[in-house]
Amino acid sequence: MNNTASRHSIDQSHAVEDTYPSRKGLSSITDRQDPVIYAPQNSTPPIDPSQIEQFEQQGFIVLDNIFSSAEIEALQDESARLRSTASNDEQSEKAYTEPGHHEVRSIFSLHENSTVFKKLMMDERLAGLARYILNDQVYIHQSRLNYKPGFIGKEFFWHSDFETWHVEDGMPNMRALSMSVTLTENHTHNGPLMLIPGSHKKFIACEGKTPRQHHLASLKKQEYGVPSNEHLSMLVEKQGITTVTSKPGSVIVFDCNTLHGSNGNITPHPRANVFFVYNALSNKVAKPFCEQPPRPEYLCARSNIKPLTSSRSF
Amino acid sequence: MNNTASRHSIDQSHAVEDTYPSRKGLSSITDRQDPVIYAPQNSTPPIDPSQIEQFEQQGFIVLDNIFSSAEIEALQDESARLRSTASNDEQSEKAYTEPGHHEVRSIFSLHENSTVFKKLMMDERLAGLARYILNDQVYIHQSRLNYKPGFIGKEFFWHSDFETWHVEDGMPNMRALSMSVTLTENHTHNGPLMLIPGSHKKFIACEGKTPRQHHLASLKKQEYGVPSNEHLSMLVEKQGITTVTSKPGSVIVFDCNTLHGSNGNITPHPRANVFFVYNALSNKVAKPFCEQPPRPEYLCARSNIKPLTSSRSF
Repeated sequence: MNNTASRHSIDQSHAVEDTYPSRKGLSSITDRQDPVIYAPQNSTPPIDPSQIEQFEQQGFIVLDNIFSSAEIEALQDESARLRSTASNDEQSEKAYTEPGHHEVRSIFSLHENSTVFKKLMMDERLAGLARYILNDQVYIHQSRLNYKPGFIGKEFFWHSDFETWHVEDGMPNMRALSMSVTLTENHTHNGPLMLIPGSHKKFIACEGKTPRQHHLASLKKQEYGVPSNEHLSMLVEKQGITTVTSKPGSVIVFDCNTLHGSNGNITPHPRANVFFVYNALSNKVAKPFCEQPPRPEYLCARSNIKPLTSSRSF
Repeated sequence: MNNTASRHSIDQSHAVEDTYPSRKGLSSITDRQDPVIYAPQNSTPPIDPSQIEQFEQQGFIVLDNIFSSAEIEALQDESARLRSTASNDEQSEKAYTEPGHHEVRSIFSLHENSTVFKKLMMDERLAGLARYILNDQVYIHQSRLNYKPGFIGKEFFWHSDFETWHVEDGMPNMRALSMSVTLTENHTHNGPLMLIPGSHKKFIACEGKTPRQHHLASLKKQEYGVPSNEHLSMLVEKQGITTVTSKPGSVIVFDCNTLHGSNGNITPHPRANVFFVYNALSNKVAKPFCEQPPRPEYLCARSNIKPLTSSRSF
């Protein structure tokens, strides 16, 4: 009996090979094993080919002027509506607050809470680009509205999203990308997104283990799955830091493994964005690559996964 | 007897009028009562007259290229020496550490600890400009070496230095200025100094009282003497925020009442500067405008005050 149970357990955990082991010992840095652009050479991209090349080399691009003023206003209105609803429901597990404060910092599962944002994530201008880069059908691994208030906005330390999605969600490969649609102006001074260009081509395995219910703390302030200062310094030394400043309605597209973070914000200017993670259908999550049970469905879509259908406009 | 004691006490506390009451009730905003530039009209400034005008209007200026490369290197070496000495003496009341960490954040009383920095504060390029703007002999109210480490640098919330020096030190009027000599590069992303242009022409009285031994906490993270979010928003709305980026060896000169602050720093790039407060000899501190005893001498020079003599070079 024990043998059978054991074999069964081994079958499950080894169904997908762990190409990117992390939180299994000391911090280390290795090369990326996966492509960045999955689209066939010589295929026609939906945006300027130089932007695709930039995405390949730097791990991110910023798309400006793809939404009309009316569209941007509609997104801002919807964000305000969701935040005021979430404030009345502070205990909701899908609404995370600022450490030590009651301001709502993140609202998840936007497709369940908002028709406007559901249409936005299906919009061809976003989903079509994701399908092109990943060369596959795509689905939403996670969606959220992020709000970093003025005066008390806390920092987010450097991290690769893929490291967490791989270890804690069981995402097999680097075949996913994020799109952040800005809803407020990003100045240099209000805690804008910072990225390390080229960092997506390396994988930093992190020290430590994954504690139980890690997501309850890590979404406020991450302490595990954090790259070492030495490896961060090495990458920044070589490639610098890019700070994204932009008007409302810009789209920051970044690879799942691009190292990013943001400083706090003591200015009166809040920051808000909608954040979608597009994953290739062929890259669906399996068993987590750690000893913890899977994270909740609103952080990692797992059951009943269907590819996004095409949509012209939200 | 009681009457005499009481009259004596009244005499002391009312020797200097409290022109800028703060921490006595609700937050409020009033006009500055003092000049910004004390130099007589039509006098010849030691720097470009347009910079003096900018100082008058904005409350700060940045002087570039006033030190040679060799001088900058000497200042950087001296900073490294002082930090390594202070690290061995963590318990020193003159060395403040980062909240929750052991990195040295501030070292005070530089004239006692360092011949190099003592000469720097007397250097005509700095002290001469202070004498011109304040139109008086000057002395050093406070001096410190600030070090904001990479990765864990914490924010400093918005404040007017004068508000603290007035309430806690008994500095009568706005006739003082600060000079910050940068020792590392200030990028937009490593928690550089932010200032609100024009804010020096208003005085924001802060809410709350002054707790006992406030400086032990306030130098790490200020919770009293903090302007209200409403008044900050109002000033920023009108006048914006200026972020100072600069090379090592730049000098940021700002009025004692200019609102300033800085965000945290998750990047690998540390920030260091030497900070001198020049006060007009005629504006010497008196009894604090609060119910607490004076702060220690290393935060506020009080006894045995002598004006700086002129010096050509450090």
